[in-house]
Amino acid sequence: MKKPEFQPSEAVLSGETADIYFARTIEILRHEGLDPMATMEVFSSRAGMLCGIEEAKALLDRVLPRDRREVWALGEGESMDTREVVLRITAPYQSYGLYETALCGILSHYSGCATAARECVAAARGVPIISFGARHVHPSVSGILDYSAIVGGCVGCSSAAGANLTGVEPSGTMPHSLIIVMGDTVKATVAFDKYMPSEVPRISLVDTFKDEAEESLRVAEALGERLNSVRLDTPGERGGVTVDLVKEVRVRLDLAGYNKVQIFVTGGLDPERITYFLDNGAPVDGFGVGSYISSARPIDFTADLHELEGKPIAKRGRIPGITPNPRLKRVM
Amino acid sequence: MKKPEFQPSEAVLSGETADIYFARTIEILRHEGLDPMATMEVFSSRAGMLCGIEEAKALLDRVLPRDRREVWALGEGESMDTREVVLRITAPYQSYGLYETALCGILSHYSGCATAARECVAAARGVPIISFGARHVHPSVSGILDYSAIVGGCVGCSSAAGANLTGVEPSGTMPHSLIIVMGDTVKATVAFDKYMPSEVPRISLVDTFKDEAEESLRVAEALGERLNSVRLDTPGERGGVTVDLVKEVRVRLDLAGYNKVQIFVTGGLDPERITYFLDNGAPVDGFGVGSYISSARPIDFTADLHELEGKPIAKRGRIPGITPNPRLKRVM
Amino acid sequence: MKKPEFQPSEAVLSGETADIYFARTIEILRHEGLDPMATMEVFSSRAGMLCGIEEAKALLDRVLPRDRREVWALGEGESMDTREVVLRITAPYQSYGLYETALCGILSHYSGCATAARECVAAARGVPIISFGARHVHPSVSGILDYSAIVGGCVGCSSAAGANLTGVEPSGTMPHSLIIVMGDTVKATVAFDKYMPSEVPRISLVDTFKDEAEESLRVAEALGERLNSVRLDTPGERGGVTVDLVKEVRVRLDLAGYNKVQIFVTGGLDPERITYFLDNGAPVDGFGVGSYISSARPIDFTADLHELEGKPIAKRGRIPGITPNPRLKRVM
Amino acid sequence: MKKPEFQPSEAVLSGETADIYFARTIEILRHEGLDPMATMEVFSSRAGMLCGIEEAKALLDRVLPRDRREVWALGEGESMDTREVVLRITAPYQSYGLYETALCGILSHYSGCATAARECVAAARGVPIISFGARHVHPSVSGILDYSAIVGGCVGCSSAAGANLTGVEPSGTMPHSLIIVMGDTVKATVAFDKYMPSEVPRISLVDTFKDEAEESLRVAEALGERLNSVRLDTPGERGGVTVDLVKEVRVRLDLAGYNKVQIFVTGGLDPERITYFLDNGAPVDGFGVGSYISSARPIDFTADLHELEGKPIAKRGRIPGITPNPRLKRVM
Amino acid sequence: MKKPEFQPSEAVLSGETADIYFARTIEILRHEGLDPMATMEVFSSRAGMLCGIEEAKALLDRVLPRDRREVWALGEGESMDTREVVLRITAPYQSYGLYETALCGILSHYSGCATAARECVAAARGVPIISFGARHVHPSVSGILDYSAIVGGCVGCSSAAGANLTGVEPSGTMPHSLIIVMGDTVKATVAFDKYMPSEVPRISLVDTFKDEAEESLRVAEALGERLNSVRLDTPGERGGVTVDLVKEVRVRLDLAGYNKVQIFVTGGLDPERITYFLDNGAPVDGFGVGSYISSARPIDFTADLHELEGKPIAKRGRIPGITPNPRLKRVM
Amino acid sequence: MKKPEFQPSEAVLSGETADIYFARTIEILRHEGLDPMATMEVFSSRAGMLCGIEEAKALLDRVLPRDRREVWALGEGESMDTREVVLRITAPYQSYGLYETALCGILSHYSGCATAARECVAAARGVPIISFGARHVHPSVSGILDYSAIVGGCVGCSSAAGANLTGVEPSGTMPHSLIIVMGDTVKATVAFDKYMPSEVPRISLVDTFKDEAEESLRVAEALGERLNSVRLDTPGERGGVTVDLVKEVRVRLDLAGYNKVQIFVTGGLDPERITYFLDNGAPVDGFGVGSYISSARPIDFTADLHELEGKPIAKRGRIPGITPNPRLKRVM
Repeated sequence: MKKPEFQPSEAVLSGETADIYFARTIEILRHEGLDPMATMEVFSSRAGMLCGIEEAKALLDRVLPRDRREVWALGEGESMDTREVVLRITAPYQSYGLYETALCGILSHYSGCATAARECVAAARGVPIISFGARHVHPSVSGILDYSAIVGGCVGCSSAAGANLTGVEPSGTMPHSLIIVMGDTVKATVAFDKYMPSEVPRISLVDTFKDEAEESLRVAEALGERLNSVRLDTPGERGGVTVDLVKEVRVRLDLAGYNKVQIFVTGGLDPERITYFLDNGAPVDGFGVGSYISSARPIDFTADLHELEGKPIAKRGRIPGITPNPRLKRVM
Repeated sequence: MKKPEFQPSEAVLSGETADIYFARTIEILRHEGLDPMATMEVFSSRAGMLCGIEEAKALLDRVLPRDRREVWALGEGESMDTREVVLRITAPYQSYGLYETALCGILSHYSGCATAARECVAAARGVPIISFGARHVHPSVSGILDYSAIVGGCVGCSSAAGANLTGVEPSGTMPHSLIIVMGDTVKATVAFDKYMPSEVPRISLVDTFKDEAEESLRVAEALGERLNSVRLDTPGERGGVTVDLVKEVRVRLDLAGYNKVQIFVTGGLDPERITYFLDNGAPVDGFGVGSYISSARPIDFTADLHELEGKPIAKRGRIPGITPNPRLKRVM
Repeated sequence: MKKPEFQPSEAVLSGETADIYFARTIEILRHEGLDPMATMEVFSSRAGMLCGIEEAKALLDRVLPRDRREVWALGEGESMDTREVVLRITAPYQSYGLYETALCGILSHYSGCATAARECVAAARGVPIISFGARHVHPSVSGILDYSAIVGGCVGCSSAAGANLTGVEPSGTMPHSLIIVMGDTVKATVAFDKYMPSEVPRISLVDTFKDEAEESLRVAEALGERLNSVRLDTPGERGGVTVDLVKEVRVRLDLAGYNKVQIFVTGGLDPERITYFLDNGAPVDGFGVGSYISSARPIDFTADLHELEGKPIAKRGRIPGITPNPRLKRVM
Repeated sequence: MKKPEFQPSEAVLSGETADIYFARTIEILRHEGLDPMATMEVFSSRAGMLCGIEEAKALLDRVLPRDRREVWALGEGESMDTREVVLRITAPYQSYGLYETALCGILSHYSGCATAARECVAAARGVPIISFGARHVHPSVSGILDYSAIVGGCVGCSSAAGANLTGVEPSGTMPHSLIIVMGDTVKATVAFDKYMPSEVPRISLVDTFKDEAEESLRVAEALGERLNSVRLDTPGERGGVTVDLVKEVRVRLDLAGYNKVQIFVTGGLDPERITYFLDNGAPVDGFGVGSYISSARPIDFTADLHELEGKPIAKRGRIPGITPNPRLKRVM
Repeated sequence: MKKPEFQPSEAVLSGETADIYFARTIEILRHEGLDPMATMEVFSSRAGMLCGIEEAKALLDRVLPRDRREVWALGEGESMDTREVVLRITAPYQSYGLYETALCGILSHYSGCATAARECVAAARGVPIISFGARHVHPSVSGILDYSAIVGGCVGCSSAAGANLTGVEPSGTMPHSLIIVMGDTVKATVAFDKYMPSEVPRISLVDTFKDEAEESLRVAEALGERLNSVRLDTPGERGGVTVDLVKEVRVRLDLAGYNKVQIFVTGGLDPERITYFLDNGAPVDGFGVGSYISSARPIDFTADLHELEGKPIAKRGRIPGITPNPRLKRVM
Repeated sequence: MKKPEFQPSEAVLSGETADIYFARTIEILRHEGLDPMATMEVFSSRAGMLCGIEEAKALLDRVLPRDRREVWALGEGESMDTREVVLRITAPYQSYGLYETALCGILSHYSGCATAARECVAAARGVPIISFGARHVHPSVSGILDYSAIVGGCVGCSSAAGANLTGVEPSGTMPHSLIIVMGDTVKATVAFDKYMPSEVPRISLVDTFKDEAEESLRVAEALGERLNSVRLDTPGERGGVTVDLVKEVRVRLDLAGYNKVQIFVTGGLDPERITYFLDNGAPVDGFGVGSYISSARPIDFTADLHELEGKPIAKRGRIPGITPNPRLKRVM
C-alpha cells in the first residue's frame, strides 16, 4: 500500500471539533501568561494495533513550533499493550492543548478498526480478506475505515475512498439488486462480463434466486474460463453459509470440470466464524468482512500531563514523571 | 433544538464513498438500457431509535427525479422495531442505486449513537445528561455524534461542531490539564471565574490533587455564590466515583452551607452505572456520558428490492412485495 | 382408533425373555411349597402417559387363575405421576412372578414413546402430527412404536404395522430416492399422481434438487388442484427448515394463486422446535416427527411386593402395605 | 460368544414394518419401468460402535439378486465415526428400496445399545459387567438388547433370549421378591443353595430387610465356602450403594474371615457412576448395568443414493458420488 | 428464657484482649490532656439479628462515667439492616476508647450465631430446634453460642453452660459411644431408662448397628410407652437422613402401634436441608442443628467517631454527624 | 514463638461446657459398672492445618490415668488431609468420655483459624502478615485466635492476649479515632512519636482526612528518618486500597526521597486479594489480615470408637478397628 498524505481540516485546526473546555483553557492560560513546556503522554485503554498515528503526526507537525518540540511515538500498525504509552509530546502547552480531543479521537477510531481487521486476518491463516463494511458507517469515515482495515492486513476494500487513500484497487462482486433488476443471475453475470474492463475479476453472486449449488453450475457453464469466483452470501433465512455448503459447491464444480472457479464467502463473518470454516476444512478462497471491522468498538485513548518544565507531575491516580517505554521512536 | 440543513458532500454524490460494485451496477444497467421503477425497502437489524433519516432524505431529495419518486419513512428520533422497514423508495433504479452504501451507512451511524443516548436518558429519570464523547471518534464525525446524542435526549454536548448543528450551547467544565498547568484547583477555578463570560457556568473539577471532599470545600469557599457545580471524575485508581462519595460530598457541602452547589458526575458512565447511582439515592445533578454513546455499536441496516415496475419480487429468503408498515409517512 | 387384540407370544409365556432369576425363584418356591397370595404394585419412575397396559393385561389374563386374582390398573393413555402405582396384582405368587420382567418392559417401552408423542401433540396446539420414526427402531417393534404414538395423540403413522394395529390409514409422502431415481421432483410428483389411488394425498417433497420456494411453485404448476401439500425437509447442510422459509414458501404459493396447497414440515422436530415454529407464526399445516418419539427414553417401572396373605410387608426403603390410589380401576 | 443365525421375518420381507412410502415408491417405479443400478450409502449420525450389521446382511442376502449386487460394510462391533459410511449397497433399486426403513432401524437399535455397553465396559477397566436391562424394554427385543450388550463387551446377560443368541450362560442373582416371600434373606439364600444346580453361582442379595453389612455377615455364616458373592442394590431411599458402603462390607467380611466372598454392585449404574467407584478405590468384583444400556438412545442412521448407473448424484446438501472409506470391506 | 447477668472479665477490663493500638491511643491522649466528649456509632456489615448487646451494655455500664454518658441501642434479638447503627455512645473518649475491640467482637460473635439460628427457626415453620453445636467451638464460648441460639429462637441446647445462662433445661439424646460400649442399642436404651430421672425424655439413637427402621421397632418394643422419640442421625456413608427414611420409619412405627413415638432428626442440617424435609412432607417432630449455627460466620461491626464536643466530624468515606435512626432507644 | 502452657479450666473439667448427654453416658456406665479400655479416633472433615492439639493434650494429660493410657497424635501446625486421623486415645472410657465435646471444639476452633492464616501466608510469598482480627471475635477467644494465626505463619498480632500466649510483641499502628480526636494525621503521628517507647515502630495511618498520597508526604516530612511505614486502609467508599494506589504512593515517596518508608496494607484482605497485589507488582512491605483469619469457618472434627478391649468395632458407616496412620507419634 502507498503512504497517504494527511492534511488537518479547517474544522479541526479551528477547534470546532474539540471539546469546548480546551478552547476555554487556552484562553485562560493566555490571560494568565502561562505557557510552560509540557509533556503529555497518550496511552490506550486496551491492547491492540495502533493506527491513526500518521494523521495525528500530520496535525502535530502543523501546530507545534519546530524549534521547541519533541515527539516520540510508536509506528502505524504496531502492536500496543494495555495502557502502553504510544505518543509523547513535549512542547509549549498552548500550542497543542486545544487538540487533545482530536488526537485521542483519531487514534481511537482508526485503532479500533485496525485491531478488528487484524483479528480477522489472524483467524484466516493466509486466506485473503476484503473489507466490505462501508455500508455500516457514515460516508465521511468510509475512507478511514478502509484505510484502517488495510493497515490491519486486509488485501482489499470495497470503497473507492479507501482504495484512493491506500493505493489498492477497489474490490467488489455484484449486488443482489443487479441480479434482481436483470431478472436472472446468469443474465446479470453475462452482462457484467460483457461491459466490465477485463482486469476486473468476474465474481458471480449465486444465492439470489436459486439454490447456490445449482446456480454455481449455471454461471460456470455460461462464463466458462472467464469466471473467477462464485460468492456465497446465503441469508440467515436459508441457513447462512455453512462449511457443508462450501464443500458441496466445491465438489459439484469440480465434478463438472470447473476446478479453477474460486469460492468467496461473505455474510456475518468474524474471527470465530472464520475459524469455524477453516477448522472444519471448508475450501474457501476469500472472505469478505463487514461490520466486525467497520463497527468495531473504538479503543479509548487517554492523554495525561506528566512533566511541566522538566519536573515530574501528575494528577491523583497517575504516576508522576516520564513513563519509560523503550519502544517509542523520536518522530519530530 | 434547531433543525439542521444537511447537504450531501461531493464525495458522496460522486460515489467515491460507495461500495465499488454499485458504480459498476449502474454502468452495466446503462449499457443494457434497463432503468425500471424499483421499490427498495430499508430495515434495521435490531430495535432502537431511528436517526439520520434527515440526512438520508436530503441526499434522496438531491438525486431522485421529482416527478417520478415516492418516498415513505419514519421520522427522526422515532422508535423502530427489529427488522421494521424505516424507509421505502420508489423511483427509477439508476437514479439512486449508487447510494445504497451511503444511505445504510448514514442510518447505521446516527441510529447507533442516538439509541445509546436514549438508553442513558431513560436510565437517568430526568437528571440531565451531557454528551462528552467527542474524544473517542474521528473529528470528522464529532458533530454527527453530538447531533445524534441530542436527538437521543441529551441536553447538551461538548463539541462546538455538535452545538452548531443543533443550536445548543456547547457545555464543558475544565480539563485536568488546566489545573495541572496552574498547579492548584482553587487557582484554576478562580482564573476560570475571572476570565470566562458570566453566562458560562462555573463547574470545578475537584479530583486532580486532593481528596474530592476536601477540594470541594476549598473551591466553594473560594468562589462562594458564583460556584455552580463541582464535577466528580475520580479515576479508577482511586475507586472511581461511587454513590457513597457523592453522598458524602453533598453532606459536607451542606454542613458548610453550600446547599446550592450542584454535583456533576462523569467517568465510565452507562445505563447500568447511572441506574446504580439513582437506585442508591446518590444526589447527582447531572451526568456526563462519553464512550457509551460515542462508541456505540452502529445498527446495521439492509436495503432490499421488493417491487419492479409494480410487480412483487424478492431475493431468496425475503418476502416478495411491499412490506406493510402503517407507521410510515410519505415524505417525498 | 380401533382397540387391538394383544396375544402374548410363546417366548414370553415360556419365560425365555425373562430375567433368569425369576425362573429360578419360581423353581425354588415350588420346591419349598410356598405360593402365597401376594400383592405386587408397579409404579413408574417419572411422570408421563401410561401406555402398554392393554398388552400387560392380556398377558395377566392368560396366566392368573380366574378365581384367585384381583387386578387394578389405570387405563391406556391416562396420565401418571412420578412414582404413582399404575398396576396392582393380587394372586398366587407362582402364577405371575415369572412375568415381572415382561410386565415392566412392556409398560416401559410403550409409555416412553406415548409420553414423547403427547409432548409433541401438546406443543402443536391442534396442528396434526404424523409419526415418522419407524426407521429408528428394530422392525420387530415398529408396530408398537406407532401404536404408542397414536395413543399419544398423533393422527397417523408411516408404518403399515402400526396402521394395522390401530386401524388408521398409513401416511407418507415420497422419499428422496424416488425423486433421485426419476431425476426430477416434478417428474416424480406427476408419476405419483398418475399411479397412486386417488384417496392417497399428493404430498410433494420439494428440497431434493432445487431451492424449496422455486420447486414448490414448479410442482404446484404441474399438478394444479390435485396437489395437496408440499413437504419441507431441508437438510441441516442447507440450514434446516426455518420459520422464515415456511413463511416465504406460503407467500410465494399464495402470490401464484396456490392458497390451498398445504405445507407439511419434517426434520429433527421435537416439542421445542414445534413451539419455535408456532410461536413465530409459521403457517404449518402438519408436522412429521421421527426420532423424538421413536427414540424416546423408556420410562422405567418398578414392581414391589406390598402384601403377603393380606399382611403389609415391604423391602427396606419402601412403605409396607397397599399404596392408596383412588384413580385405579379394577380390571380383573 | 457364538455367531447367531439371523432370519428376516415375514413382517419385514412383506414390507409391513416399512414406511408406507417406500412401498409406494416401488410400485411407481415398476409402473414406470425404472430399475437402475443404484448405490446407497448408510451413515450414522454420531460416533459409536456399529452393531446389527449381521442382521442387516442377512436381510440383504435374502433380497438382493446374487449376480447383480455389491455390498461393502464395516464389521459387527467395529468403531465408527460421526457421519462415517458403514454400509454401501449397489444393486437394482427395486430389489432393496423397500427395506431402507428396516436397515436403518436394525442398525440404530443395536448400535445404540452396543455403544452404551462399550462405554460402561471401558469405564470398568476390567471389572466384569453383566447386562441387567431386559426389564426396561419390550420382550420382543430383549434378546437383541442382550446380544448388543455382549457385542459391546459385557460378559453376561440376564435374559435367556440373549443368552441363547450369544451362547453365554444366563446370569442372575435373586430377586427381592424371593426374599420377601420367604421372609428372610438367610432363609432364601439357603433355599437357593439347596435347589439350584451347583454350577449356578450363589450370589445373595443383602439389602432387603437389614443393613447390608449386617446381612452380609449373616449369609456368609450360613453358607460358608459356598457363598460366591453378595450383591449390593441399596435403594435410593437408603442412600444407594456408595464407595464407603462397599469398603465397609469388604472390611467386615474380611475381619470375619470371608475374604473369598465377592461383592457385586447394581443399581442406577452408568459410566460416570462406575468411574466414581473405581476412582475412589471401591473393591467391586462385578457390576450389573440396566437402563443405561437397555434404554440407550438409538443412533440414527441415514441412507442416501450417491450413484445411479455409475454416475454421481445426490440430493441437495450431500456430496454426489461414492464417499471414500478405506475401512469398508466387501461382504457380498 | 431468663435474662442473664453479664460481668466483664478482668482480661477485658485491663485491655489485655484489646488491639494494642487502642491502649497506646489512650496513653497518648492522656499525655496530651485530650479527653473530648466523643460520639461513637457502631454499625453492622450485613443484615441479621442483633445479639450480644446485653453483654456490651454491661461493659459500658462499668466503664462510662454515670454523669457524663448517653447510650442509645437496639434491643437484644432485634433485626438490623445492613449498615444500620445499632449502638451510639456519647461520653469522654478516654473512658471507652480502649474497649472498641471488645465491643465489636462481642456483637460480631453473638450476632453471627443468633442470625444463623433464626434462619433455621424460620425454615422449620414451628417444628422445634435444639442447638447441638457445642462440639464445633472452643469450650470457652460454648455458653455464648447456646445463648445466641436461644435468642435466635431455638427451644433448647446441648451444653450445660448455655442452659445455665438461659435458664432452659439442657437437651440431649445419647451418643453413639454409649451404644458401642454397651454393645446394643436396646441395651443402652433400657439402661438409660433405668438410671435417668424420669423428667429426662427417653430419646433413642437408632442408627448405630442396624438399619434405622428395624432398630426403631426394637427400641419401641423394649420401652413401650416410656419411649419419647427415636433420633435419626444416619451417616453420609449410609446416605444420610432422607425424607423417604423419615416417612418409612413413621409408617413402620404406626403399623406396629407406636404412634406416639416422635422422630427427631439430626446431621448436617441447615435452612435449605430443613426446608427440603418440610417441603416434601417428612413427619419430623424436632431438629437438632450443629455447625450451621455454631460455625456461623461472625457479622463484622465497625465503630466510627461522628461527633466531637457536639460538632460533626468523620473520617473520609463516612458521613459526618449523627446518623439518624429512630429505632434506637436510650439505654443509659 | 514460645510454647505456651495450657491449663484446662474448671468449666471444662466439670463438664459444664460439654454436651449434656456425655455426662449422662458416664453416669449410666458407672451404674452398669462398665469401663472398658476404649480406643477413640478423632478425624477432621476437611484438609488443613492441625492446631489446638497442645491444649487438647493438656486436657488429656490431666484426666487420663497415667498407667493405663496411650495417646498418639500429629503435632501442632502439621498439615492434615480430609478425614485423616489426627488423635488416637486408648484409655478407660469413663476417664475421658465426658471430654469429647471439648476435644473436638478445641481442635475445630484453632484449626479453622490456623488454616486460614496459612493460606494468607502462602499467598503472601514472604511478605510478612500481622493478625488484626481480634475485633471480630468474642474477647474470651481473642488470645486463641492470635495464637492460631501465629502457628499458621503470621509474624505478629494485635492483641496483648495473643502476644502473651506466643511471646511475640503485640503489633499495631494507630486507630482512626486517635487522628480524629487530635484533628490531623500529622499531629497524631508527631504525638505518637513523642510518647511511645522508641522500640515501637512509627506507622502512620494516612487515609483519615486527606488523599493518601498527599498525606503520606506530609507525615514523611514531619517525622523524617523516624517514620517506619505508612499504612493504607482506604475505605470501600473511596475504592479501597488498590495496586495502583500502592504504586503511586511508592513513587511519590521515592521522588521526595523517602525510599526507606515502608508501605503496610490493610482492609478486607484474603488470599485472593493478597495475590492480586503481588501478581500485579504492588510494592507492599506488609499486610494486616482481619476477618479472613478470625472469622474462618471452624474445621469440624469427629470422634469415633474403633476398639473396645482390643477388639475392632465401629458404628455403621465406619470401618472397624484401628485406622492406620504412620504420621501419628505417640505423645503419652
